[in-house]
Amino acid sequence: MPWYQLTDPNDPKLDELARQYNLHPLHIEDARSADESVKVDSGTNYTFAVFKPVHLKPNPDAPGQQMPTFTTIDLFAGKDFLITINDPTCPASAHALERARRDGDDEHPAHLVYLILDTIVDHYFPAIDYYDDRIDDLEDDVIDNPEPEVLQKVFAIKRDLIDLRRVLVNTRDAALHLQRDPNTIIPPEQQLYVRDTYDHVARLLDSVETQRDLLNNTLDIYLSSVANRTNEVMKVLTVLGTIVLPVLAISGIYGMNLHGLPFADSPNGALYIGIFSVVATVILLVILNRRKWL
Amino acid sequence: MPWYQLTDPNDPKLDELARQYNLHPLHIEDARSADESVKVDSGTNYTFAVFKPVHLKPNPDAPGQQMPTFTTIDLFAGKDFLITINDPTCPASAHALERARRDGDDEHPAHLVYLILDTIVDHYFPAIDYYDDRIDDLEDDVIDNPEPEVLQKVFAIKRDLIDLRRVLVNTRDAALHLQRDPNTIIPPEQQLYVRDTYDHVARLLDSVETQRDLLNNTLDIYLSSVANRTNEVMKVLTVLGTIVLPVLAISGIYGMNLHGLPFADSPNGALYIGIFSVVATVILLVILNRRKWL
Amino acid sequence: MPWYQLTDPNDPKLDELARQYNLHPLHIEDARSADESVKVDSGTNYTFAVFKPVHLKPNPDAPGQQMPTFTTIDLFAGKDFLITINDPTCPASAHALERARRDGDDEHPAHLVYLILDTIVDHYFPAIDYYDDRIDDLEDDVIDNPEPEVLQKVFAIKRDLIDLRRVLVNTRDAALHLQRDPNTIIPPEQQLYVRDTYDHVARLLDSVETQRDLLNNTLDIYLSSVANRTNEVMKVLTVLGTIVLPVLAISGIYGMNLHGLPFADSPNGALYIGIFSVVATVILLVILNRRKWL
Amino acid sequence: MPWYQLTDPNDPKLDELARQYNLHPLHIEDARSADESVKVDSGTNYTFAVFKPVHLKPNPDAPGQQMPTFTTIDLFAGKDFLITINDPTCPASAHALERARRDGDDEHPAHLVYLILDTIVDHYFPAIDYYDDRIDDLEDDVIDNPEPEVLQKVFAIKRDLIDLRRVLVNTRDAALHLQRDPNTIIPPEQQLYVRDTYDHVARLLDSVETQRDLLNNTLDIYLSSVANRTNEVMKVLTVLGTIVLPVLAISGIYGMNLHGLPFADSPNGALYIGIFSVVATVILLVILNRRKWL
Amino acid sequence: MPWYQLTDPNDPKLDELARQYNLHPLHIEDARSADESVKVDSGTNYTFAVFKPVHLKPNPDAPGQQMPTFTTIDLFAGKDFLITINDPTCPASAHALERARRDGDDEHPAHLVYLILDTIVDHYFPAIDYYDDRIDDLEDDVIDNPEPEVLQKVFAIKRDLIDLRRVLVNTRDAALHLQRDPNTIIPPEQQLYVRDTYDHVARLLDSVETQRDLLNNTLDIYLSSVANRTNEVMKVLTVLGTIVLPVLAISGIYGMNLHGLPFADSPNGALYIGIFSVVATVILLVILNRRKWL
Repeated sequence: MPWYQLTDPNDPKLDELARQYNLHPLHIEDARSADESVKVDSGTNYTFAVFKPVHLKPNPDAPGQQMPTFTTIDLFAGKDFLITINDPTCPASAHALERARRDGDDEHPAHLVYLILDTIVDHYFPAIDYYDDRIDDLEDDVIDNPEPEVLQKVFAIKRDLIDLRRVLVNTRDAALHLQRDPNTIIPPEQQLYVRDTYDHVARLLDSVETQRDLLNNTLDIYLSSVANRTNEVMKVLTVLGTIVLPVLAISGIYGMNLHGLPFADSPNGALYIGIFSVVATVILLVILNRRKWL
Repeated sequence: MPWYQLTDPNDPKLDELARQYNLHPLHIEDARSADESVKVDSGTNYTFAVFKPVHLKPNPDAPGQQMPTFTTIDLFAGKDFLITINDPTCPASAHALERARRDGDDEHPAHLVYLILDTIVDHYFPAIDYYDDRIDDLEDDVIDNPEPEVLQKVFAIKRDLIDLRRVLVNTRDAALHLQRDPNTIIPPEQQLYVRDTYDHVARLLDSVETQRDLLNNTLDIYLSSVANRTNEVMKVLTVLGTIVLPVLAISGIYGMNLHGLPFADSPNGALYIGIFSVVATVILLVILNRRKWL
Repeated sequence: MPWYQLTDPNDPKLDELARQYNLHPLHIEDARSADESVKVDSGTNYTFAVFKPVHLKPNPDAPGQQMPTFTTIDLFAGKDFLITINDPTCPASAHALERARRDGDDEHPAHLVYLILDTIVDHYFPAIDYYDDRIDDLEDDVIDNPEPEVLQKVFAIKRDLIDLRRVLVNTRDAALHLQRDPNTIIPPEQQLYVRDTYDHVARLLDSVETQRDLLNNTLDIYLSSVANRTNEVMKVLTVLGTIVLPVLAISGIYGMNLHGLPFADSPNGALYIGIFSVVATVILLVILNRRKWL
Repeated sequence: MPWYQLTDPNDPKLDELARQYNLHPLHIEDARSADESVKVDSGTNYTFAVFKPVHLKPNPDAPGQQMPTFTTIDLFAGKDFLITINDPTCPASAHALERARRDGDDEHPAHLVYLILDTIVDHYFPAIDYYDDRIDDLEDDVIDNPEPEVLQKVFAIKRDLIDLRRVLVNTRDAALHLQRDPNTIIPPEQQLYVRDTYDHVARLLDSVETQRDLLNNTLDIYLSSVANRTNEVMKVLTVLGTIVLPVLAISGIYGMNLHGLPFADSPNGALYIGIFSVVATVILLVILNRRKWL
Repeated sequence: MPWYQLTDPNDPKLDELARQYNLHPLHIEDARSADESVKVDSGTNYTFAVFKPVHLKPNPDAPGQQMPTFTTIDLFAGKDFLITINDPTCPASAHALERARRDGDDEHPAHLVYLILDTIVDHYFPAIDYYDDRIDDLEDDVIDNPEPEVLQKVFAIKRDLIDLRRVLVNTRDAALHLQRDPNTIIPPEQQLYVRDTYDHVARLLDSVETQRDLLNNTLDIYLSSVANRTNEVMKVLTVLGTIVLPVLAISGIYGMNLHGLPFADSPNGALYIGIFSVVATVILLVILNRRKWL
């Protein structure tokens, strides 16, 4: 059975194969489009599939960090031929093809498709783990040091998870399609394997949902910690005011150019008034504290 | 096959055609109504369809900016006739008719309907891109300069997206109807094309959902940045208070007309007390800073 | 065909008709109950329907304003009789009966039912427009003058929309029932008309959903504008404090009864110190402004 | 037909009946369990049903107030026997049995079951009305006097509504089961009655949903009124500061021990400076007011 | 009938059994995987099931407290054999096997599977009760003492409930699968038992949903109490300011080195001015109080 392994959808070889195997022009157009989404389309004489393998690559904006990156792999799987178009820079798709070559069987393109899909799905787990780690870090950050930058990181991950979720939902639908479609190329005895892959994708989606919940919790913690800090600052201001106001009031009173102020002529007047001020401040603080206002 | 291209639903020619081809009065009424919504209605002898092409036109309220604008196109497609009523000011519907004329086939009205729908859907992509750009700008704005105007822009786009989403949902249902309806005019060999258009609309809807999520994130960033700024202002007030209060308290004390204040008679009293005030302020700031209250 | 037009469900005539046409006691009980909800119930020999026409009536609490008000109309439509019970004070139900009398046909009770339902649904549009106008006003109010009263108006409309939505959902289900039910009295050739009415109700529901979204936006704008105003007030307080604190500190220092203060004995001391105070205040304001704290 | 009316599920009579009528051990276990939930279980020779009648009883925590309380009633309805186990302290279940005894027919256990269910459902309406009144009171409270206690009342009702909603959802499912189940004991000619009961439960559920919406509105009003009050307090503080600061600054200046202050030696200096202070304060207030900062 | 009770999925005995009973390699792989999720998979000659028993074990982070912990139990149930692999440290799975041994019947593996599942489900109730107690404690805490730590506890429980909910949803699906699957090993006469277990899981899920609602309420109470406290602190600050400002203003005025101040030369000037200050403060407080600003 021939297996054509292309690495560029614009390769003229593809046009030749399209003529030879009667591939639908819309599928060729899809394979060459820049923003394909994951899908499986079972025609009468072959199945067209698009998957999105993911790999971690260094993040140019944050040195030392990595970021999940999607590439595209297209498959045309007939009864007696297989055409794959993958991006050679993606280790996940390279690994998928390699495993298919090693474990697969030249006479069963359906099994090769399963092996490729299964490997691609396996490569989503490190991406999910990557976000798990990032979210754990954010949760620590948001408690220790609730800065606005944390918020931007939360929203950046939210945005990534929106994309990841969409790819996973489509991959799940594709796996379901390979099980249920009456034209599916997967023979009954291999359905259990596809169902297993489907279960893996469903578990990945569960994890993404959990991560979204955790991010929302992080956001709530952040917002409540900002409210708390405002509260704390207000209290500091109030304590400072409480400490100083009696002194200001008393010193203001004794600064007046009036006659008849008690102790005004006493040689230890400053001492008496100083003691009185301290006592007044302490009483005020005790009252506020008792009423749980501070 | 005759193709009647009208540009005004109130053209008396339409009444004539209605008699000739036995068009249903409700469809004529719909075509003439001001607020039609997207739909496909397959009758026994013809299919009535309403689509909403979109084009960008200059925004009168914001010079230099554009805004997506919907017009309406009505189609009556029978086995051997086609009637179209489009708004001639809309480049998207003009383009759709032009492509149908060029690529279509006079004997297959169903194919013409597909070509028109497909072109209309293609024209939604620039509208989505337009909102992507606007939302990107807003995200930058909200971080650099969180003003209430940003909020009004966010809600204006939200309102637009509500409308756009409704049109897309109805267009998706219309494309589904063209695939599934037992009376559909689309022959089986062209179903794959309609399914492709359906996939495009589904992807557009995905994008709109993502944009709504991003707008909600922008809103959360805005609200939290307002809370943060209040927090910052409170801290400034507290720092100012902290710096000034010791000076006020000490100067108040030495302003009292009392006897017995230390250094009151010393020739360098002002210097000693000045040093004492600065030291007291610094100690207070250090304490507050250590406790992370500032 | 006899058409009995009652205006009071407690009319003893209804009991007589119930005996004559074998009406179900539960339907008679429903017709006489105070809080009927919209429904269609197709029995073996007749169909029982409850609709809720709406009309705008002057609002006693807000002179010059109107408010949507629901009444009830009950229909018993058999093959060869029609009984209607409407509230004579409601212009919408009066109009519905009048149109049925004018356009309907004595021999087809089903068509009369359709005409009544269609007219009732047409009368929902002014109610929706009424809320559109109210929400537009609120949106202007909330930006110009965010007072707590705006909030109460928002919640009052929300409450109204909850009721309106329930009536519309039930009316939509009733229209669907008239199309789908195997016992439906509507003959196949009139189904297109009922479907049209169904589409109208669906569009009304879409509008109500949009209005709920817009009200939520208004609420968010209100809450964020309260947060903004708090922020503004804080800034005013901080600016005032910043302007006055240097003057207070300096005047406090020169109010001390101490020796050795610079310029204390200079004849132009007040002028020098005044200039110094103004310069200190300006420097402080410039620093705060540069750091974007104000 | 024998009707066994037990009032205690632990009555040994029940074991005897279980042997006699071949009741399933799981049903007996359910009847004796403390936390049964509403359900209908149609077996081959009898139907087992659990309902939850509600009644209002005095609230021990809030004298003068009432609170809805659930009890349990179990029914075993065969073709020729009926066993009921009710809590004798519940007026709703007593009323249900009494009505069944009065209106029911000894030969039709199914009709007795319907009568009991219908009476139980009728008794939910006062409970819903009770919450309507409580929520109306809360809405008035939250506007007049937004105290934290209001919030606790809101959450207490929310918690109650969660329970009530669960009971109603299960009761609705039970009513549906009595209509749809192929083994149902309800004969076709009585289905209309069960459907009517089903409609009542659906309307009760609608009311509970509305009440949840209203409680959420109350919560939003509460939170926004707290934000508003903080805003008001801030403004009072700022107005007080604005009134007093010019006086403090000016009196501070004239309190300095410096030479060269204008009017310092004028006999009416205090008057001139007093007028100047008042004018400065008024100008400041006018400026702040114009800029809408207060 | 042989029943193989393994305690370690890596036991080489499992490979031997896999060969003997023709177990599917994917099932063996699942049993040996670290993060299995709950499922039931009915093959042609046996059923593979994974359950997650829960038990409470001491929490190492919080001495004296406990925490729910999941382990895994795998079952391979054929017509004439049963293989179980359980974690021996888990009392719940030990109890399940013990009950199966005691009440089960060697010839019916399906009944053993039911007994094991039922015992596992029974052991979820204490875990739910555990969270009920924790949430009750939190609700008391959040009202008495709203500290940020409460928030962290709320989010920790939320996270736990996300996990618990997932396990329960999968267990419910597994129970449904045992009822509905055409290949199910459960014979018809035992379906009622499995349905009973299904009802228990559904009730557990209801409880988890209620707990999530209650946690959200707790969160709202927390956030509103922080807003309230900020409000309280603001009021204290304003009251302090209100009390002190008249004294400061008056004492400032009488501290000026000016001529013409009233009572300046009176021997009881200090007394008159003191009375005037107190009266001014009281009037100010009364005004603020009347306007409900404090």
